[in-house]
Amino acid sequence: MNNKFLVGIDVGGTTVKLAFLDEEGVIKEKWEVETNRKEQGKYIMRDVSDSILQKVIQLGISNEQLLAAGVGAPGFIDVQNGVIIEAVNLGWKNYAIQEELEQLLNIPVVVDNDANLAAGGEKWKGAGEGAENLLAVTLGTGVGGGIIAGGEIIHGDSGMAGEIGHIAAVKEQGAPCNCGKFGCLETVASATGIARLGLEAVQRKPEGYLKKILDESGTISAKDVFDGAKNGDVVSISVVKESTDHLGFVLANLANALNPETIVIGGGVSKAGSFLVDYIREAFNRFAIPKIAKDTTIRIAELENDAGVIGAAWLAKQKRTFL
Amino acid sequence: MNNKFLVGIDVGGTTVKLAFLDEEGVIKEKWEVETNRKEQGKYIMRDVSDSILQKVIQLGISNEQLLAAGVGAPGFIDVQNGVIIEAVNLGWKNYAIQEELEQLLNIPVVVDNDANLAAGGEKWKGAGEGAENLLAVTLGTGVGGGIIAGGEIIHGDSGMAGEIGHIAAVKEQGAPCNCGKFGCLETVASATGIARLGLEAVQRKPEGYLKKILDESGTISAKDVFDGAKNGDVVSISVVKESTDHLGFVLANLANALNPETIVIGGGVSKAGSFLVDYIREAFNRFAIPKIAKDTTIRIAELENDAGVIGAAWLAKQKRTFL
Repeated sequence: MNNKFLVGIDVGGTTVKLAFLDEEGVIKEKWEVETNRKEQGKYIMRDVSDSILQKVIQLGISNEQLLAAGVGAPGFIDVQNGVIIEAVNLGWKNYAIQEELEQLLNIPVVVDNDANLAAGGEKWKGAGEGAENLLAVTLGTGVGGGIIAGGEIIHGDSGMAGEIGHIAAVKEQGAPCNCGKFGCLETVASATGIARLGLEAVQRKPEGYLKKILDESGTISAKDVFDGAKNGDVVSISVVKESTDHLGFVLANLANALNPETIVIGGGVSKAGSFLVDYIREAFNRFAIPKIAKDTTIRIAELENDAGVIGAAWLAKQKRTFL
Repeated sequence: MNNKFLVGIDVGGTTVKLAFLDEEGVIKEKWEVETNRKEQGKYIMRDVSDSILQKVIQLGISNEQLLAAGVGAPGFIDVQNGVIIEAVNLGWKNYAIQEELEQLLNIPVVVDNDANLAAGGEKWKGAGEGAENLLAVTLGTGVGGGIIAGGEIIHGDSGMAGEIGHIAAVKEQGAPCNCGKFGCLETVASATGIARLGLEAVQRKPEGYLKKILDESGTISAKDVFDGAKNGDVVSISVVKESTDHLGFVLANLANALNPETIVIGGGVSKAGSFLVDYIREAFNRFAIPKIAKDTTIRIAELENDAGVIGAAWLAKQKRTFL
């Protein structure tokens, strides 16, 4: 291999995903290292750089073939200065990650929030390929998001932009959210939120598929709700409608303000696929400006676990042109 | 005068506002010409350029002292190519305004939507001075808006971004909007919308100040509602609360997604001043993420009728650096 490579690094709570990509965004090599959270995560970046330098040797390439690296991390980040303000899961606080990794690898490094980079990945090589204006929403245990406008990640004044999960979706009598507010999108559109809505629905109307699941297993998951709905279970369908009504409302209002070309739905809940998209679309069209409803594409994310490293490489490539 | 000037042009339905500004954004000369809407508005730009060239002679300066011009116009604009797709009020359709004005004035010209440029004006020299991330909302006959993120106007995929007035504010049983939807922000936060809410409130509860105004004049205006509320009239206060509850909800959700430094409130309704801001703030804080609630400044617009020409000059200056 005698090409040039971008390095994508996606730091998670249990593993760090790593990849070498060519300048077209094709993954040439990918692997993982364990996230060592000991002593406030001080070993994580050293493990990462050791692993990268070993991989360089193993592949028989030279350090000069690495162009730049992008790092995605959870938490609150000063992207301008490449400093992690706080990443609770990793133990990092006021950590100058960009400076450290540039010294370790001797290449330019850029850092951003992992949800923003997942959006960047889908924009570059995924469901939003080529979209200069894109909304990405991740429906997992929580609800995360990333906003790309005019080809750039929107960070806002203090780096908090894209917190789609904490948009107020239920205006009155919403459920409490971890953030301290009530009725956030996360309370009704995350896997946890959908499971809660399912449990409440079956308590109100104890019949059908969800009642059976609850009796058998003592609990209900978001997947149970979608399985039931796909099979025509009335209570399950009402839960999917309730959840997607809120999600469609929030996404339509973001689209009314931001006019994205594509909205990409990712995370565990998105495994419900086109069934989910159809319900979101129905609600979206009720609340979107007619031209926005017509012009906005809503798609399931395509890159799954690779979105982060691809987005990190995308940012590295983008920023490198300014260096 | 032997300085260099930026030219700001703000095209409205009855007059075109014109100004020469220095590179710091200080208006050195401002004037207006009538908007000649005859024959699909084909004379408007010729009138504008004639007037500018006359002003150059009158001030004893030379054409070479004009650096660049920015034009704000109502309607739907392809800013990339400087083409007005449609401006119904002016009769323009698929009109290559940038090309025409560049030929007439022989300087670089940039074009954008007037609401976006009003946001740019407030960002450069007004209530949002220096904010790289700003939301501007104009509460007039309708509700308009402009979004600036990372120092740039957000246009979206087809130039429709910033349509804050058509965000769904009343999710169920909202009033019909001109756009064909129901419950848009415009139906409850424009001067027209507030007047309607006032009329409905006094019909439900025929007493107090609004009842008196209605009996005397046969109608109620947004100003009547604010006058009543400021004097403690209970029905008026309930209307202000209802309107600002919706406005605060929409602005908080935009802020949750975009993390602006400043939200600027302009238009006729904003004459209600800090009284209005206090009510918006109360609702905003209920729906904003705690850190967003704490960090976001909400202010009344400062530039009034000059916002458009100042914003146009700001854009001209900004784009000129790329030419």
